Amino acid sequence: MNPLENIRIVLVDPKYAGNIGSICRVMMNMGITDLALVAPHAELDWEEARKLAYKAEPMLAQIKIFQTLEEAVAGCTVVAGTSARTGFYRDHAYLPREIAPVVLDSAAHHKTALVFGREDKGLFNDEIAVCTHIINIPSSELYRSLNLSHAVMICCYELFLLANDASYKPPEECSPEADGKMRARLYDAWSAMMLETEFCEKEKLDHMMLGLRRIFSRGKLTDNDVKILLGIAKQSRWVAAERERLRAEKPPGRLGMTDLSS
Amino acid sequence: MNPLENIRIVLVDPKYAGNIGSICRVMMNMGITDLALVAPHAELDWEEARKLAYKAEPMLAQIKIFQTLEEAVAGCTVVAGTSARTGFYRDHAYLPREIAPVVLDSAAHHKTALVFGREDKGLFNDEIAVCTHIINIPSSELYRSLNLSHAVMICCYELFLLANDASYKPPEECSPEADGKMRARLYDAWSAMMLETEFCEKEKLDHMMLGLRRIFSRGKLTDNDVKILLGIAKQSRWVAAERERLRAEKPPGRLGMTDLSS
Repeated sequence: MNPLENIRIVLVDPKYAGNIGSICRVMMNMGITDLALVAPHAELDWEEARKLAYKAEPMLAQIKIFQTLEEAVAGCTVVAGTSARTGFYRDHAYLPREIAPVVLDSAAHHKTALVFGREDKGLFNDEIAVCTHIINIPSSELYRSLNLSHAVMICCYELFLLANDASYKPPEECSPEADGKMRARLYDAWSAMMLETEFCEKEKLDHMMLGLRRIFSRGKLTDNDVKILLGIAKQSRWVAAERERLRAEKPPGRLGMTDLSS
Repeated sequence: MNPLENIRIVLVDPKYAGNIGSICRVMMNMGITDLALVAPHAELDWEEARKLAYKAEPMLAQIKIFQTLEEAVAGCTVVAGTSARTGFYRDHAYLPREIAPVVLDSAAHHKTALVFGREDKGLFNDEIAVCTHIINIPSSELYRSLNLSHAVMICCYELFLLANDASYKPPEECSPEADGKMRARLYDAWSAMMLETEFCEKEKLDHMMLGLRRIFSRGKLTDNDVKILLGIAKQSRWVAAERERLRAEKPPGRLGMTDLSS
């Protein structure tokens, strides 16, 4: 199949209907038609959207609405989120031209998502956490922030060019890639492990998990990879639970470092 | 100097002020700030332009206004016009990624223009004729026509990326490139030559000149090139005039092919 048909554009909490209309046009221009909105504002001016969608107006009726980002990308393997900011967990960001083969390779066999944040504040940390990859659109220091529809255009343009590049060959599928649900199970298990082994405190858990998600998402995470990682977490949690049990059983005087190093 | 500072974006007869505002933002995002309008409509809604320019609003006050495209690009060596159509004189169109090094190489030493037509009808043939190169922005058969600001974004994005590519080296200047005025002289002389040598009829002249402009613009046209081409036209016109003179002098019976082949 045409990989562009497997690509979903997800807009989180868009404020201006004009942007939604413009984005319908931009997407059709670049051969992409699956648009999803997460928690859109109730009072969007759909007349404005229709005006800017112009001949892409029919796409407006096909838009899928979700209440959470997790639901919008539940079936997607690669979930690439755009971010203007940099920082710890936003390192390893891809340029639009670099992410294009990652997204297309994935879209050759799986539903794949590009996620764009609100016009004013972008994606929040808990939304970035849902993404497997971060895209950073280059811009001039004269004016860093792009209009939402222009950000979508640049990403879709790179995908359209690559999909139409005769030298591009999509990969054969081997081990199936883990989808959103599998990854959610994985991260839940690892969060619990990190707390139970006292690797980090509850207040620092979210921050640590963002880093960990980034590490796990650098390559493709297959079902088998997730099973191994789930096993590791399960075993460490068992060890932590055993330690708790032993600690509770032993008399106070014999606890501590001396005990463990014997 | 930064070659992006030598690039002028020219909008011919734009109908919607919102697009002008969006384009200010798009240009600043990509480090380009010289915007010119040709024959803009008198009743443009500048409030709408300000809204969409957003933080690029100061650029609106810097816009240059011209009555003709020739004036807007008078000092420019490379003049690249966008066209969605194809055809005889629109062949040899460049993709935005292909035109980027042509434009940047030129902008390293000369004022250089990218020209965009009206929202509904694009550039007319006599405007395309002023361009040295044609850009064709790729788009899906689902919806071919891009919004004006998105077309500008794609072209500016390619220029910005290349200008910031560490492996890109602008050329040394050798023979100076011919500017708009020199080229106008050249085409006037060749038009006259083609009529006077009876190479083509007056009705077909415009069409033929479009093809010829395309041929001459495929490489860089230096001042020296133009001088040579002007010389050729001058000589052919002299021969044509001599033939006329001889024809007028000779008695009717001795005219024609036999005379010329003797």
